[in-house]
Amino acid sequence: MVLMKNGSEKYFDIAIEEAKSGIDSDEGGPFGAVIVKDGKIIASAHNEVIKTNDPTAHAEILAIRRASEKLSRFDLSDCTIYSTCEPCPMCFSAIHWAKIKNLHYGCDNTDAAQIGFDDKFIYDVIRGVSNNQKVNSIQEHKEKCMLLFEMWEEKKDKVQY
Amino acid sequence: MVLMKNGSEKYFDIAIEEAKSGIDSDEGGPFGAVIVKDGKIIASAHNEVIKTNDPTAHAEILAIRRASEKLSRFDLSDCTIYSTCEPCPMCFSAIHWAKIKNLHYGCDNTDAAQIGFDDKFIYDVIRGVSNNQKVNSIQEHKEKCMLLFEMWEEKKDKVQY
Repeated sequence: MVLMKNGSEKYFDIAIEEAKSGIDSDEGGPFGAVIVKDGKIIASAHNEVIKTNDPTAHAEILAIRRASEKLSRFDLSDCTIYSTCEPCPMCFSAIHWAKIKNLHYGCDNTDAAQIGFDDKFIYDVIRGVSNNQKVNSIQEHKEKCMLLFEMWEEKKDKVQY
Repeated sequence: MVLMKNGSEKYFDIAIEEAKSGIDSDEGGPFGAVIVKDGKIIASAHNEVIKTNDPTAHAEILAIRRASEKLSRFDLSDCTIYSTCEPCPMCFSAIHWAKIKNLHYGCDNTDAAQIGFDDKFIYDVIRGVSNNQKVNSIQEHKEKCMLLFEMWEEKKDKVQY
């Protein structure tokens, strides 16, 4: 008897293999992601924060960068992303910027927090439910910076994205 | 009479010049950022979404990537970031992951929304105040994915980041 994997399970399995290879090779944390278009995987990635020293090198960010490079467009609205863990707010927002409409994930951010990856803390800060801000934010020189927006508004040949 | 610029203004001026060069060269939207350590600019960037087709190529993300590459570490807790606009939730979260403690910004995300950059929408989704979800999220295959977290927990020589 051959056990057929359902549609999403085969993509999760590749994402899990990605994550495993990242752990084994000391390249990053236990996270993998794949991006699928028309039933085919067009990009896969695992977390590479340790390997690259880049704190933004999460699996989903790398998968989005690879997929957009492959398709030569920043609009991935015809793609689906599969991630072994619920995306942190950085990656969740990146999924929005990429216009991806469907996200499937395995573990959630409460699980991630329990092994030391505190996405949940950042979600709580954004939601205004954390009393412990780690980043001091100051708004200043707004007038000068607004000139950039006027310049953009007046630009005739701009690509709106 | 020489008008002295205050501490932050000189960094904003560089970030503004970055943004202008990105607009002029059609590389991206009207956003620039610089990262400063010990009073010196160690990385600067403008939005490169159009140039690179990478939807994650926001000024702050690129500045963080360049700074961490330059310092060969993912911990930028001794750095300050200056951005011409309030970071979107992707970049705000990246600032947390980079452990940057001080953020100075010019325009805010309401201003950005008015010229078509809808960071505010993503903030509203995360805060649960938007009724209009653009990303359908499904949690599945959690059990399989949790094995990755066990693998990570059991790994003896891991770099916690």
